Amino acid sequence: MQVKLVSNVLKANDQIAADNRRLLARGRTLVVNLMSSPGSGKTTLLERTIAELGEACPMAVVEGDLFTTRDADRIERLGVPVVQINTEGGCHLDAQMVRAALQDLPWEGRDILFIENVGNLVCPAAWDLGEDLRVAMVSVSEGDDKPAKYPRMFREAAAVVVNKLDLLSMTDFSLDRLEEDLRLLNPAAPIFCLSARTGEGLAAWVAWLKGRVAAKRDGAATVGVAP
Amino acid sequence: MQVKLVSNVLKANDQIAADNRRLLARGRTLVVNLMSSPGSGKTTLLERTIAELGEACPMAVVEGDLFTTRDADRIERLGVPVVQINTEGGCHLDAQMVRAALQDLPWEGRDILFIENVGNLVCPAAWDLGEDLRVAMVSVSEGDDKPAKYPRMFREAAAVVVNKLDLLSMTDFSLDRLEEDLRLLNPAAPIFCLSARTGEGLAAWVAWLKGRVAAKRDGAATVGVAP
Repeated sequence: MQVKLVSNVLKANDQIAADNRRLLARGRTLVVNLMSSPGSGKTTLLERTIAELGEACPMAVVEGDLFTTRDADRIERLGVPVVQINTEGGCHLDAQMVRAALQDLPWEGRDILFIENVGNLVCPAAWDLGEDLRVAMVSVSEGDDKPAKYPRMFREAAAVVVNKLDLLSMTDFSLDRLEEDLRLLNPAAPIFCLSARTGEGLAAWVAWLKGRVAAKRDGAATVGVAP
Repeated sequence: MQVKLVSNVLKANDQIAADNRRLLARGRTLVVNLMSSPGSGKTTLLERTIAELGEACPMAVVEGDLFTTRDADRIERLGVPVVQINTEGGCHLDAQMVRAALQDLPWEGRDILFIENVGNLVCPAAWDLGEDLRVAMVSVSEGDDKPAKYPRMFREAAAVVVNKLDLLSMTDFSLDRLEEDLRLLNPAAPIFCLSARTGEGLAAWVAWLKGRVAAKRDGAATVGVAP
């Protein structure tokens, strides 16, 4: 019974996600669902991406957290429209939460809508929000074993960001080991090694995003791996 | 209906956890539920704790992961009895999983049973496993905002470990900010700042554990904050 209920809840979510996708498609806004462990640097990556690309590609942001508006406050300071979703203890965003957030967010006419999910490598992977593509992030200080241990998150990612490259020499993180495990799950997703803190390696990530925005604007059927 | 079902599942879990607690009390084994984000260094802390304290206080370990036996392999290499639980995608351990693991693990007569939970700051906090105490860990590279953002995990912790102290100077982590947020939730839990990698700061953690083992051996009613 529990399994069936969960399956029904997921099915209802998928329908709302499909509605979100239709709604968002009207504006040709690229919708990116950004996911990682707590503290991998999702908000810092958004801050840096806004600084580098925000002028060329106007953005809006949905922030997901259990409690607090700390992340939304950081985005708001940059002058980008943002809505904070507090899940009140819930371990992931769902499509209904995003639908509600969209009503309060002036996303139309913007090139990118970032959805920063709750910090969690497990649960968010199961929930379609209506995004165009998913980006999975891991920081070098978390270790290179994350794709093998949390495969669903990395299997469905259109791109993988390896953050905190500035800490690399202080860790035993091996990009080769990460890539080896990742390729068993996900043969094609580009890997962007960068430091959101220092800006190192950011250019390739920004160029890729620009390409996805252009594809979306041109009405490409798929701009990323379908979730 | 969904809420009621979840509540029933949690109630069933609590009954099995109480059974686990009774079973484990017979052996006067201190049972520690170790929880953190993915990659905070739980297994490295266990490796280091075994090296420092394993001779004085014999241990056994239950490892929780979605997939892979990588963590159990690391513990096994140290000659400590270990059972790996694979949740097959599940985001936390539950009491039933631990009960099954105990049947395969020679825990009796050992001073400490460590249960390393799935890497997740959200879901494991809701599930009693039958432990004596909970330890919540965060690494400095994750940032000092984790207690405020994931309060349940930190509210119910008998101790908080701040790991990766060797990376401190490379981050903007502030122990004062973490402590300020933590004290709003949890006035008394000791905070152990350490580097499981280098061994710095480990002595206070090991001394505290020894004290908890002695309290358990003496039959103290509570050896930690009840979950």
